[in-house]
This record gives sequence, structure tokens and C-alpha cells, in this order.
Amino acid sequence: MKLYISPRAPNPRRVQMFIAEKGIAGIAEVVVEIGKDEHRSSDFRAKSPLAKVPVLELDDGRMLGETRAICSYLEGLYPEPNLMGETFEERAFIEMTDRRMEFYLFGSIANCIRHTHPGLAPLEQPQFADFGRSQGEKVREVARWLDEELSRLPFVAGERFTIADITAFCAIEFARGLMKFRPGHEGLANLQNWRDRIAERASARV
Amino acid sequence: MKLYISPRAPNPRRVQMFIAEKGIAGIAEVVVEIGKDEHRSSDFRAKSPLAKVPVLELDDGRMLGETRAICSYLEGLYPEPNLMGETFEERAFIEMTDRRMEFYLFGSIANCIRHTHPGLAPLEQPQFADFGRSQGEKVREVARWLDEELSRLPFVAGERFTIADITAFCAIEFARGLMKFRPGHEGLANLQNWRDRIAERASARV
Repeated sequence: MKLYISPRAPNPRRVQMFIAEKGIAGIAEVVVEIGKDEHRSSDFRAKSPLAKVPVLELDDGRMLGETRAICSYLEGLYPEPNLMGETFEERAFIEMTDRRMEFYLFGSIANCIRHTHPGLAPLEQPQFADFGRSQGEKVREVARWLDEELSRLPFVAGERFTIADITAFCAIEFARGLMKFRPGHEGLANLQNWRDRIAERASARV
Repeated sequence: MKLYISPRAPNPRRVQMFIAEKGIAGIAEVVVEIGKDEHRSSDFRAKSPLAKVPVLELDDGRMLGETRAICSYLEGLYPEPNLMGETFEERAFIEMTDRRMEFYLFGSIANCIRHTHPGLAPLEQPQFADFGRSQGEKVREVARWLDEELSRLPFVAGERFTIADITAFCAIEFARGLMKFRPGHEGLANLQNWRDRIAERASARV
């Protein structure tokens, strides 16, 4: 299998961290340079029609796109350690939390950065800076809620590390770099402590 | 079980349509009036901390939020007819398409409507009309791609009806009402034909 990635982009990082947690070896990485617009080339669009990275190329040549769908496939192929739920009930609750991390935390961070950061202008045209700043406020609302959750839970979906921690961690790291967002500086000590614990995992260094 | 819904909102409709396709009986519906701000009440936030509808209340009192996570749970409880994939591989490919429908089609439609329609002002504050109109252009780009897909596929994820058709249909219906978007009027005959076929299903009338 081959995984098409873009360095420093948060979605490929989610899959790379998932692969590292599973200890899966042998998936080749192919770099798609977003800065050079390679994701919009007709070559890459043949693999990913909406020009999104990452994509997993299976051994039979089929292309599987969308971060969480790639993780679902890899969870099926490599069930251990389980990251998405053992039973359908646990899977549903982890999916709930993973979606909350993806839509309301990561989604707002991505909107804020893509619409306010000059470095992202080539990716997001036109940029709407007022909208972006307003999304930054939503990031803080969701981060405050998550900080409260983490006052009583060790991981975002409960008692153990799951895919939802990967989604939230890659979002927070993206915000740390490009929004200068530090939970500890905003009085969110639980979120900062959780972030620091996750950052110590070997998978966080991929 | 109880399902908290809001009339005319597209996300509860997705779950209602999923339930109708499964033929599941006995889930009570409880209306949350978004127009009266009931979703932001402390009572409802105890069920759904980020004030999102729908939520499924399980018989043991636990609250499961997030449209697709609720569907995953119901698919586990009521496996037939299968709507999300039989094997982990099929599940991953259906999830890929469902996410494309949700993020790029439905997401852009929702952004467009929430930021441009005066009726949605109570839900989306502040509204950024220029951003909303720009999202309307993205809707049309994705709709053109989907129209091409439907020139060779009977359903959005391939040969059979799946959850991805529900997501896309509820999105297109939302756009039909509040964006006056008709695929046929935009030259997208395949998308219009697919929409009209799905609209004939009994589940489309919930």
C-alpha cells in the first residue's frame, strides 16, 4: 500500500499517527506538495477527485480517500491495538467523540487558519478574514468545553486512548503552530496536560 | 429509545430517513424547537453539550449524539437492510463517500445557507454573507463532480443504496428549499435523476 501525504498538513498526520499507534510497517509514503499545487494536478485528481490529501492506494490499485475512512480500513486489517471501538456500541460512542473533535474543534481551527493566515492563501481562495477570526472564537468555546471534559476523563473519549485523541491532538498541534494557540495560556490546564501527555507518545513524533 | 429532532433540520432528517429505511419501530421522537432556542437551554445541553440536534437517548439513559454515530449504533442493533457496508473494506469505501457528501456537499450547503439566509440568522451569529456566497460556488463545483459520478453509478457510493445517498439527498433537499438549488436547472441531469429516484422512496417522506 501507498499513502499520499503532505508534510505539515494535519489530515495526513492523523493517518500517520494512527499507523504508528498500530505499529503497521511497510506502507510507503508518497509526498504531494500542496505548496506547489501538486494536489490539483490531473495526475493526483485521478487518485483523489476533490484534490484532498491523504489518500491510501491499496495493493489492487483502488484509491481510498478521507482520513477517517482510511483509519477504518486499517483498523479492519490490523485490529490491534483497538483504536475505534471493540463492539458496535463502543464504536458508536468513539465515533461521536471523534466527530466532535473533527467538526467543532479541528473544523473551526482549520477555518480560522485557512481564512486568516497569509501562508494558507494559496489553498483558500478567497479568504474571509472576519469569518476566520469568528471561527477562532468558536475554537475557544469548544476548547473550554473539552477542558472541562478532561477534568474528569483521562482521554477525550473516556478511559483509554482512541482515534478521537489523534484527531484532537493533530488539531491542537495545528493550532499551536499556525494560531499560536496554547491551552495553558488560555487557562485550560486540563487540555494542556492532556496535550502534553499525548505529545510524549512515540506516535506523536511521526 | 428516544430521538431528539428538530422539524425541517437536515441532520435529524438523515437519522429519521435511516430509521425508515431500516423499518425500525418504537423510537419516540421528541421535538427540540431550534426557533425557540430550546437547543441552547441547560436542560438540552445536559443531553447534548454542544447544543447539537439530533441526539439518541438509549434505554439506559445514555445520550448518543452526532448523526453518523447514531446511524452506526442503529446499524449494529438492526443490521438489515445493510446501509453502511458488510465487510470492513466495504464499510471504509462507503464511509469515504459518506464523508465526501457530508463535508464537501452538505457542509458547503449548510455554510451557504447559514451565512446568507435571513431565516438562519438566529442560528448563525455573526453571519458572513460573502463567505456564504463563496460556499455556494463550492456547492456547485462538488455538484458537478457528483453529477459526473452519477453518469456511471446508480447510487452515490456505487451499485446499491447506502447511508451516503441519505446524506446527499438530505443535503440536496435542504439546498432545494433554502438555496432554490435545482440540479436540473444547472444542467446536472444525472444528479437530478438520482434525486428524483431517491425522492420516490418511502423513507424520503418522513
